[in-house]
Amino acid sequence: MPSTIELLEAQPSPPDSGTLKVLAAFIDSARACAQACTSCAASALAEPDPGPLASCVAACLDCADVCLAAARIASRPLSVMRRDAAAALLQSCAGMCELTARECFRHEMHHQHCRLCMEAARTCLEACEMLLEEL
Amino acid sequence: MPSTIELLEAQPSPPDSGTLKVLAAFIDSARACAQACTSCAASALAEPDPGPLASCVAACLDCADVCLAAARIASRPLSVMRRDAAAALLQSCAGMCELTARECFRHEMHHQHCRLCMEAARTCLEACEMLLEEL
Amino acid sequence: MPSTIELLEAQPSPPDSGTLKVLAAFIDSARACAQACTSCAASALAEPDPGPLASCVAACLDCADVCLAAARIASRPLSVMRRDAAAALLQSCAGMCELTARECFRHEMHHQHCRLCMEAARTCLEACEMLLEEL
Amino acid sequence: MPSTIELLEAQPSPPDSGTLKVLAAFIDSARACAQACTSCAASALAEPDPGPLASCVAACLDCADVCLAAARIASRPLSVMRRDAAAALLQSCAGMCELTARECFRHEMHHQHCRLCMEAARTCLEACEMLLEEL
Repeated sequence: MPSTIELLEAQPSPPDSGTLKVLAAFIDSARACAQACTSCAASALAEPDPGPLASCVAACLDCADVCLAAARIASRPLSVMRRDAAAALLQSCAGMCELTARECFRHEMHHQHCRLCMEAARTCLEACEMLLEEL
Repeated sequence: MPSTIELLEAQPSPPDSGTLKVLAAFIDSARACAQACTSCAASALAEPDPGPLASCVAACLDCADVCLAAARIASRPLSVMRRDAAAALLQSCAGMCELTARECFRHEMHHQHCRLCMEAARTCLEACEMLLEEL
Repeated sequence: MPSTIELLEAQPSPPDSGTLKVLAAFIDSARACAQACTSCAASALAEPDPGPLASCVAACLDCADVCLAAARIASRPLSVMRRDAAAALLQSCAGMCELTARECFRHEMHHQHCRLCMEAARTCLEACEMLLEEL
Repeated sequence: MPSTIELLEAQPSPPDSGTLKVLAAFIDSARACAQACTSCAASALAEPDPGPLASCVAACLDCADVCLAAARIASRPLSVMRRDAAAALLQSCAGMCELTARECFRHEMHHQHCRLCMEAARTCLEACEMLLEEL
């Protein structure tokens, strides 16, 4: 399977290698976070007592949607004109990841899916902040 | 088919009717813009000479992704905690709509799909701004 | 906001008016069902006792994903080559809608969001079957 | 970042380890194919002469949507009831991957993004077939 760096390098005018690494790290983190959120939400709904996990599921659903949109948009060559819109999207992504990490933290002792999701959300939050500095 | 207002009113603690109207208008505009962008991009690719429309297609793809994520997130009950992340998402959505409207404006004389998409993007841009004031 | 029929008519080689109507009805039903599912899932998670609704939420999440993918793909000009892949997608969409309608039926007396979602899923199921006959 | 196998093992009733491996291989392939398609489409649109790549871009957009929906649904615990709907989705996914691989094959000598996307689509096609046998 192609790596994200290979895919970015195959673009007609790829970014320089420093930006490319930060961008690839963000794309990979956002895709992993979207997957962990989708999986955590579904696992929570399959638990014997899903009630106390409801707000965690809700946070995961939002977070998955924003991470996915951000990963797709970051995979496309970034024109100067849409830099502001991309930055706002990263800020939104960071905010949703923070919220998800906080929700999953409340359950990570009892649910492995929350622990994995919390870690993925924290990693994505850091990657958002790294990419925001690069833009 | 259920209207967006009916769906919002069916939530356990729906927003008051003023907010609900602004929220429903945004959700409907963002869903319509995502659809118009998806359709415009596909129509452009099916044109006899798609080359000059390439940057328009690229803008439409980004715009569809952000509008869709924003419409889904706005369809979920808005907790106070995720207000900032939602506001950033709306700002991103507004930015992408503005860019799409500008790209499609360059072609709206020759392509009906660009005219329809431009109008949908402008409507969504206004709805973003209205909802940002309400948050 | 542009209607689905207007968007389809703006394609370079639109389908004939009979097919176009069936196609537009499907796209509108699938988009409405995706929205109703997204909204029903979020509303269920915000209920005071969401536990008994967990399998309903899970069905809604799957159904929303398939309806959305099907609506996007049906919005793009349909080449002969991808007819089989599109038909399989419609069959999957019909199956997920049937499952969602059944899950929501169990709760529609107590939750308006389930009633709305059940109706949207049934409408989409019928529209899938109409379009499958047309392909 | 959590692996797909870890995420599946964190589900309340994970599948047995044979099924789990096939399922994880499919989820990873479908996510990678969706990413390669999104990236290939965007790279093609940024080429100096995107016209000849238009039908490749169109195939990639469809393929990305179906792969993404299939990966999300495969990430959720698979109830017996939705087995048929899931199988139809896998068949659709296989068909779209085959079409994408064929389109990208026509350009892989000249465009590295088409070569990477062709490989990802072929891998996903095989993973679809493996999982269909397992269902």
